[in-house]
Amino acid sequence: MKEIYFDNAATTKTDKRVLKEMLPYFKGKYGNPNSMHNKGIEARQAIEEARQKVSNILNCSKEEIIFTGSGTESDNLAIFGYARKNRDKGKHIITTKIEHHAVSHCFERLSKEGFDVTFLDVDSEGFVFAEDLKKAIRNDTIFVSIIYANNEIGTIQNIKELAKICKEKGVAFHTDACQAANYCNIDVLDLGVDMMTLNGSKIYGPKGVGILYKKKGVEIEPILYGGGQENGIRSGTENVANIVGFAKALELVYEEKEKEIRKLTELRDYFINELLKIPDTKLNGPRENRLPNNVNVSFANIEGESLLLLLNEEGIFASTGSACSSKDLAPSHVVTAIGNSPEIAHSSMRFSLGKDITKKQIDIALGFIENFVKKLRKMSPLDFSIEELIMKNKKARECGE
Amino acid sequence: MKEIYFDNAATTKTDKRVLKEMLPYFKGKYGNPNSMHNKGIEARQAIEEARQKVSNILNCSKEEIIFTGSGTESDNLAIFGYARKNRDKGKHIITTKIEHHAVSHCFERLSKEGFDVTFLDVDSEGFVFAEDLKKAIRNDTIFVSIIYANNEIGTIQNIKELAKICKEKGVAFHTDACQAANYCNIDVLDLGVDMMTLNGSKIYGPKGVGILYKKKGVEIEPILYGGGQENGIRSGTENVANIVGFAKALELVYEEKEKEIRKLTELRDYFINELLKIPDTKLNGPRENRLPNNVNVSFANIEGESLLLLLNEEGIFASTGSACSSKDLAPSHVVTAIGNSPEIAHSSMRFSLGKDITKKQIDIALGFIENFVKKLRKMSPLDFSIEELIMKNKKARECGE
Repeated sequence: MKEIYFDNAATTKTDKRVLKEMLPYFKGKYGNPNSMHNKGIEARQAIEEARQKVSNILNCSKEEIIFTGSGTESDNLAIFGYARKNRDKGKHIITTKIEHHAVSHCFERLSKEGFDVTFLDVDSEGFVFAEDLKKAIRNDTIFVSIIYANNEIGTIQNIKELAKICKEKGVAFHTDACQAANYCNIDVLDLGVDMMTLNGSKIYGPKGVGILYKKKGVEIEPILYGGGQENGIRSGTENVANIVGFAKALELVYEEKEKEIRKLTELRDYFINELLKIPDTKLNGPRENRLPNNVNVSFANIEGESLLLLLNEEGIFASTGSACSSKDLAPSHVVTAIGNSPEIAHSSMRFSLGKDITKKQIDIALGFIENFVKKLRKMSPLDFSIEELIMKNKKARECGE
Repeated sequence: MKEIYFDNAATTKTDKRVLKEMLPYFKGKYGNPNSMHNKGIEARQAIEEARQKVSNILNCSKEEIIFTGSGTESDNLAIFGYARKNRDKGKHIITTKIEHHAVSHCFERLSKEGFDVTFLDVDSEGFVFAEDLKKAIRNDTIFVSIIYANNEIGTIQNIKELAKICKEKGVAFHTDACQAANYCNIDVLDLGVDMMTLNGSKIYGPKGVGILYKKKGVEIEPILYGGGQENGIRSGTENVANIVGFAKALELVYEEKEKEIRKLTELRDYFINELLKIPDTKLNGPRENRLPNNVNVSFANIEGESLLLLLNEEGIFASTGSACSSKDLAPSHVVTAIGNSPEIAHSSMRFSLGKDITKKQIDIALGFIENFVKKLRKMSPLDFSIEELIMKNKKARECGE
């Protein structure tokens, strides 16, 4: 059975060209980059070349790139690192209601450490209002973190505008750009961000590596202490192979970005339009300023999980939300944050495309999806139209439920 | 030029058999283990099989193994995780003066967070006295961390005895067993430890993966927050390839342990005996209860670093101490903790053997070492005998310098 992989937001396949660059560091070039002999120097050079490549793409200096073990670690390092280091400057920090858990759970933790956290609302398509951010910033606000492109519904924020607001108010600004890296502008100078997180496993690189861009002068404290690697900010022997792989992966997605955006935008729009022909189906997230690889819809009266399992039997791999919280039975906090009822959230499905996807695969999938939705609805005790579900939810929200 | 690699304590070469097990997870089996479809399930199974393998070797249950991104991270997780979670039970914590920085720098950090830290002395061979530990434990002591086998001088502690003392006093006990894993008993039940750190890059596995054994019931808080992987203790998408590689590597070193101990003990003793024939040379660390792969000597009146660089030119890769602090110009804290003067510490060299090392390679190295030591001594302005240096230091210590 041929596989159709619609879960690129969860993780991407390592590009062959990336793996090829990594392999020497599992073989002859196995030195510890902190060793002073040639075998160490060879590994050190590989890391520094990787750092140079990444910084060229991000338009920053080499010293502003910190290699970490994951996107999660980079988010944690930015948030905990900044807040804990600068807590004497103020205790108010801001984020949104649609962050990845690697961000939101850090803010929740910080609220237990005495910080006052504002979680900004988003509109029905997942956009943060610049005005809301402006209003939320207080005299004691020190830090803001806003996801660049949402992992569930694909909403791309106007990071430049949001970062500018923070800059004007002297507040540090971090963005989790894990999903954005493949398709959005990641020129940190142009964006005006103070910190930015990227993740190897979302850019056709290896799992277990991330970077944090940290602008010169922005002070953070480490999470991990030890040998003082990465300028004292991130201790632990550097994962040379993964660092080399990360840089190669970023280079490739950067080179192929325009082509991929064109190709995937067309496929995405086709996929969405065809899905919306299925009765009582609702798109989650916007039509414009949406990740070219993100499709997220809700099918009234069915459980997304049931559909996922039926598709899985056919070798079609999709998701009901963030893979990182798939074991969580609660409906997606992102799909509900844009105003959906728990029912609609439970019936949502994410199809995240990747560079290998073809129109033919989408057509095959569409055939199965249509059939399975019908089948599941026949079995469902519920029989609402999508409009009824939306109205029901609207009323419930108005009544303050 | 043939290479002779004497820096296995810094990092080991990834075993071919390990890499072979890892490769499928960079290719077809690239799923996110948290995804609910077959591609995710396949990755999840790989992780759980790896966990089972590791727990079989450690003689614990699967649920007691936490995969992390490095030995450093495991140490940090054990130390910060336990101390911060249990700070209401007491503020006194204990470690030794010969820990790896991944441990000692955590304790230093905790002392800034209000903990009272005791750094235990060691004897002239690097052993911790059980009596010292007993005396150091107070009513408010909650946690002890002692390195199993020292990375610089090879001293193997009686972990069983030290863990027992802690158990009797109701104090949690962690050991950093990164260097010990290849050659020592790592049966956690037999050892009686509460937590134990292992590192992939020291056991012929990949860099960028470690484990923390954490006994059931021992409560720690996470360092990294997010998707709640590893039972909520360590968030971040699991590095499937590295986890699989770690388990395979541990399995191989476990299977080959007895053979390696026999082989390396013989080679080590031969190497040490030959080195001690060079005049004014001193062994650092013990003869008994020493890692079979560790050779550490000081050559009076020379700088270890100069010798390292000369050997490097011949393709012989050694170390002056811990690779993780090689850029630190201060003499090794371990070599000085066993009573050596800064001069003797500066003249120390570590040769850490590995499974590929041969007697022939040692003989080649010995020839160069002898020559270079002579050469460097001719150039040195100093002309002390090793006895004079030892006496000088003894007197200085008695005068309280």
